[in-house]
Formats: sequence, structure tokens, C-alpha cells
Amino acid sequence: MSGWIAVAGLGPGAEALVTPEVTQALDQATDIIGYIPYVARVAQRPGLTLHPSDNRVELDRATHALTLAAQGRRVVIVSSGDPGVFAMASALFEALEAGPTDWLALDIQILPGITAMLAAAARAGAPLGHDFCVINLSDNLKPWALIERRLRLAAQADFAMAFYNPRSKARPEGFARTLTILREECGDDRLILFARAVSTPEESLAIVRLGQVTPDMADMRTMVIVGSSLTRVIERPAGPILYTPRWSQ
Amino acid sequence: MSGWIAVAGLGPGAEALVTPEVTQALDQATDIIGYIPYVARVAQRPGLTLHPSDNRVELDRATHALTLAAQGRRVVIVSSGDPGVFAMASALFEALEAGPTDWLALDIQILPGITAMLAAAARAGAPLGHDFCVINLSDNLKPWALIERRLRLAAQADFAMAFYNPRSKARPEGFARTLTILREECGDDRLILFARAVSTPEESLAIVRLGQVTPDMADMRTMVIVGSSLTRVIERPAGPILYTPRWSQ
Repeated sequence: MSGWIAVAGLGPGAEALVTPEVTQALDQATDIIGYIPYVARVAQRPGLTLHPSDNRVELDRATHALTLAAQGRRVVIVSSGDPGVFAMASALFEALEAGPTDWLALDIQILPGITAMLAAAARAGAPLGHDFCVINLSDNLKPWALIERRLRLAAQADFAMAFYNPRSKARPEGFARTLTILREECGDDRLILFARAVSTPEESLAIVRLGQVTPDMADMRTMVIVGSSLTRVIERPAGPILYTPRWSQ
Repeated sequence: MSGWIAVAGLGPGAEALVTPEVTQALDQATDIIGYIPYVARVAQRPGLTLHPSDNRVELDRATHALTLAAQGRRVVIVSSGDPGVFAMASALFEALEAGPTDWLALDIQILPGITAMLAAAARAGAPLGHDFCVINLSDNLKPWALIERRLRLAAQADFAMAFYNPRSKARPEGFARTLTILREECGDDRLILFARAVSTPEESLAIVRLGQVTPDMADMRTMVIVGSSLTRVIERPAGPILYTPRWSQ
């Protein structure tokens, strides 16, 4: 069995943010599996089969990849960002555990990538320069009560916070509730970054105070970063810098 | 003034994990500034001046970079991992705020990189596949009481936790205290990853239960990742996989 699976992080969008390790895996693959827009980033070539699939079929996609690799294919599952941060790596391991035991002999590699929060933070300055937490605001796979509990404890710990999947069309009310909790815990002066489609032609950034935020500032392509109590703005001609100092009292 | 500063993340060690964006910035630079082992990763060439400096002089290094850029030089400050995660980006902005106002006109870019926790998580599986927090265990720039408070709240939130700078020769006792707190909050069965020097020839990984951990399992080059209550191990012939499922009750 000479097949393998690599779960590869394509980064936030720009080709200049794709690691050479990922590029090499794509070059060696016989099959590319993933969500339609990510598979569309891989160039067609002879001997390569593209398997684009719709959103929310992560386990089917993972099972498909494992089946192909067990047949001797060289399979890359493409993720945006980093595959280990709210992306395909955990789904692959869930499918692996649920599958036949001979899959346990497969060669599986996770290839890290620039996850959205690092790209967004870099564009704005360094809001994650001190201790922080990372929360997926989607309640598809966990109860809302757990999200609320984590938000309140994270605020009490004075972590900066990076939010993935802040707001979808299917659940627009979750982000409004998040903002209410943050105002209660952090007050209206807390700084927030909205970074949309970072490193793509549609990129936009906004740095605002919590008191000025409205829920429609985020959509599915937005990374939201909430500062800690120490996060600051430096005003400049070229635009503001948002950063969190390295120290804390 | 045509100088600029880029703060570039070199990733955890392997050249295959350096983004093309960072490679291009290094190719265009006139000056490279950074901690000795990171500057040593940049090849000498005509027209390039290397400025290696010792550890713990981050503000001096940042001021040096700003001064050179204001003179028209093209300066890259090299960080390991990602510059925005416990690295040079925040130090640069601290120096910028403290400096002359004409520095505010300088062209400053932060170029993201593969931070140690993403590389370590990828090598072990996907322990950061659900909500998590990121804590610098060094008490150089913050009081120990704040670290302890964050550890307890993070455990109560059932976050996975990634620890940077878990243990140095100068403060060996902090990590032992951390383990005591984690045992109180999470119990002896909690899974922990020790990932040392990931992507370098000295790489080593260990996945252990909290009850079996001793403080000497971590040093300055170790990334420590503590699982959440749902983090699991898949045993395989090629070695165990550590991962956190996407869902939570």
C-alpha cells in the first residue's frame, strides 16, 4: 500500500502564503479533495483528479480520502488556513476512528498553513501579541451555552479572543448574542478588529470600539479579533495599528 | 524615505515551512535584524548586512530596525514561528510608540509564519481542532498570579491549551507549578503533548497523561499542548495520533 493522505493548509488566500511543503504535496498528488473554492485553487494537470465537494460534508470527504489512499492513491485534502484549526484535520481523524482497522496503517500527514487569525493579526498589527484564546462561534457542533460560558471565562481571564465563523446566514443571531456578552464583560471601549478576506482582492479591515460594533460587520469570510484590556491603537497616516503589548500587570 | 521594515516569521525551523512572501522580503532586504540563531538562517550575500543580537534585547532590536528604516534601509526583523505570537511584532510597536513621531510614516509590514503550536499540533494530529487558548508561561513580563488565574479559567472553560516558553533554566519552577494547577483542575487522565524542536533534526514528540508528566519533559525548545476533556488518542503502528474532535456536548 503506497498511497498516502496529506491534509494541507492553503493559507488565507494569497499564493505567497502557501508553504513550499504544501506546494510539493500538491505536485505529487493524484487526487485533490475539498470544499469547492479550495479545490479551485489547485491547477489542473494530467494525472490529477479533482474532487470538489460542497460545504458541511466533512466526514464524507474524509472517508472518501481514506478510501482512495487505501487503494494506493496519493491524496491531498485541501483546507483553507491551517488544517488543524477548525478545518479538515479533526474530521479526518473522526473518520479514521470510525473506519476499518486497516486504515490505521495509512500514511497520514498534516501540513500546517497560515491560519486566518495569524493573517488577520499581521495585517492589523499584533493584536495576538500576548495570551489569547480561539473560539469557533458556530453552534453547529456544540451547544450555544458552551460558547457563552467560554466567552465569559475568556473575558474574565483577560485573553484577547480570535473568533472563527462569527456569523452565517443560517445563524445570524449568534454574533449579536456574542456582542451582548462581550459588552457586559468587557465594556464599550474594548477594541475589535474585523478582517475580511485577508490577502485576497476583497480584503477589508476595520478597527472599532465595542460600543460602535453592529452584528452586520461580520460575515462568513470575516475573522474577528477582540483585544484584551491592554490592546492599543497607534494612529498613523497610513492607517491605524492594533497591537497588544508583551507585558501585563 | 524609501526604507521599510518587514517583521518576518521564519516558521519553526524547516525551510519548507517558510512562506514565499517571507523569502521574497529576505531577498529584497539590505539589513537583517534578530536573535542570533534566527539571523543564522539567512544566507549572506553582497549588499546584505546581518545584525545578530542576543536574546532579551527585543526593544533595542526594534529601535535599531526603526532607525535603519528611517535612513532608507530595507530592514527585515526575523522571528521564529509567527512574528505576532510571542515574538517581535509587539516589541516593534512598543518601540514605535515610544519613538519620534516621524517614525509613524514608515512602511511597516508584518509577514505571518507557521507558529510553533501549529507545527507541533500538525505533527501530533489535531489537538487544536476545537476551541483553545494560547499562554506564554514566562513570567518575565507578567506576574505569576495572572498566569495561574488564566490557567484555572482556561481549564474551567475546557479549552485545549498551547503553552509557549514552558520552562527556562532561569525559572524552572514555573512549569512545575503549572502542572500542579492542571492536575487540580483537569485530573490525572488529561492528555498532554510535548513537541520539541518540531521540523528540525532534533525533533521529538511525546504524548502522555498528566499523571505521568514530570517538569523536566519541557525545555525552552518545547511546545506543550494540553488537551481539552474531549481530546483523544488513536493508537497506530506508526505512532499515536492526538486529536480533539470538532464537536462538544
